[in-house]
Amino acid sequence: MKAKLYQYWRSSASWRVRWALAIKRIEFETVVVNIVGGEQKADEHRARNPIGHVPALTIDGHTLAESVAIIEYLEDRTPTPALYPRDSYARTRVRQMVECVNSGMQPMQNLVVLGRLSSDGAVQKEWAKFFNERGLAAFERLIEESRKEFGPGRFAHGDSLTAADVFLVPQVYSARRFGADLAQFPRVLEVEKNALATEFATGALPDNQPGAPAPK
Amino acid sequence: MKAKLYQYWRSSASWRVRWALAIKRIEFETVVVNIVGGEQKADEHRARNPIGHVPALTIDGHTLAESVAIIEYLEDRTPTPALYPRDSYARTRVRQMVECVNSGMQPMQNLVVLGRLSSDGAVQKEWAKFFNERGLAAFERLIEESRKEFGPGRFAHGDSLTAADVFLVPQVYSARRFGADLAQFPRVLEVEKNALATEFATGALPDNQPGAPAPK
Repeated sequence: MKAKLYQYWRSSASWRVRWALAIKRIEFETVVVNIVGGEQKADEHRARNPIGHVPALTIDGHTLAESVAIIEYLEDRTPTPALYPRDSYARTRVRQMVECVNSGMQPMQNLVVLGRLSSDGAVQKEWAKFFNERGLAAFERLIEESRKEFGPGRFAHGDSLTAADVFLVPQVYSARRFGADLAQFPRVLEVEKNALATEFATGALPDNQPGAPAPK
Repeated sequence: MKAKLYQYWRSSASWRVRWALAIKRIEFETVVVNIVGGEQKADEHRARNPIGHVPALTIDGHTLAESVAIIEYLEDRTPTPALYPRDSYARTRVRQMVECVNSGMQPMQNLVVLGRLSSDGAVQKEWAKFFNERGLAAFERLIEESRKEFGPGRFAHGDSLTAADVFLVPQVYSARRFGADLAQFPRVLEVEKNALATEFATGALPDNQPGAPAPK
């Protein structure tokens, strides 16, 4: 049975997973969960992921949630092309980059957090901008450290696309949306550009997903 | 050279790593980073982890950060006793539990988030209580699902201690500190009790760390 991705076009965690699926040539269909309309809080979605976040993925007879856990599963299941380095220390550095985004940035801008923070969009935006800039400053330095230790590369870690890029690129899109000053982070922008030029990047873009608004 | 853990007694992420080190019988010494005094923001610590969080671990000639990445590294390095199941799907479920804490709960209560939210301790506490209860409600259900799918167990997933417990127990301690109503989560409390009764749990408790206040 074909994999099903329960996702929302503008959710950065959904983007990570659909991109990873595409890179690994795993066919899937999309089921839209409209998180702006609150569908992620319904019992139907909580049965897929009790905390009520997107995405969830049904694959191989299982329902998986949490993008980090899903992408590690995909790596085990379909090892090529690899999204994590084989060397244990290098893999740890990639996982550090992944968590810099996954726990260090994205949670501060999720809908529940922003909604609880304030009903004022300007307050939400300023908050999200702050945490995106803070996290990207750290990521910029992680790229620099990686190049020093492992040699130059076009991507976040080395010369092939890894999970670090798959997490970074959707976050940069969010950061831009919240008005972050990205010119401070030249390495991040260079990696974004290179990663977006890879084979499966365009198909995974938010605007190309079911449920996205039609182009103006 | 002996491993060095840069940590703070009350940091839940530090607790996860020191507990994992102890379970895997990896000797280490503690270097206190006083996060209440702001030492995590100093250049010296940012060289260990650019985002300025504790813990960081120097081991095998490397400096590692992000508790998820560190514990996965320790699992690769010292596979026994295992903190993740061997089966790929079961491992994914444990990683989902890990992320339910790591990205779903802990970030909302870190010092930077609480400080930016408000200078009023009561406002901070109410916010942290909300996100702890929200996350533990999800974790309670993940335990329930695990027991249905994999059979009954004393721990978060099955009958041996996993990374899921190593992440859950410190979070429950935080939740209690922020006034969460834990009676709603009987499975979480049962797992906490069983996990705290295991061999290396006591040595990893916050009160037993260098820098913790002396008992009254």
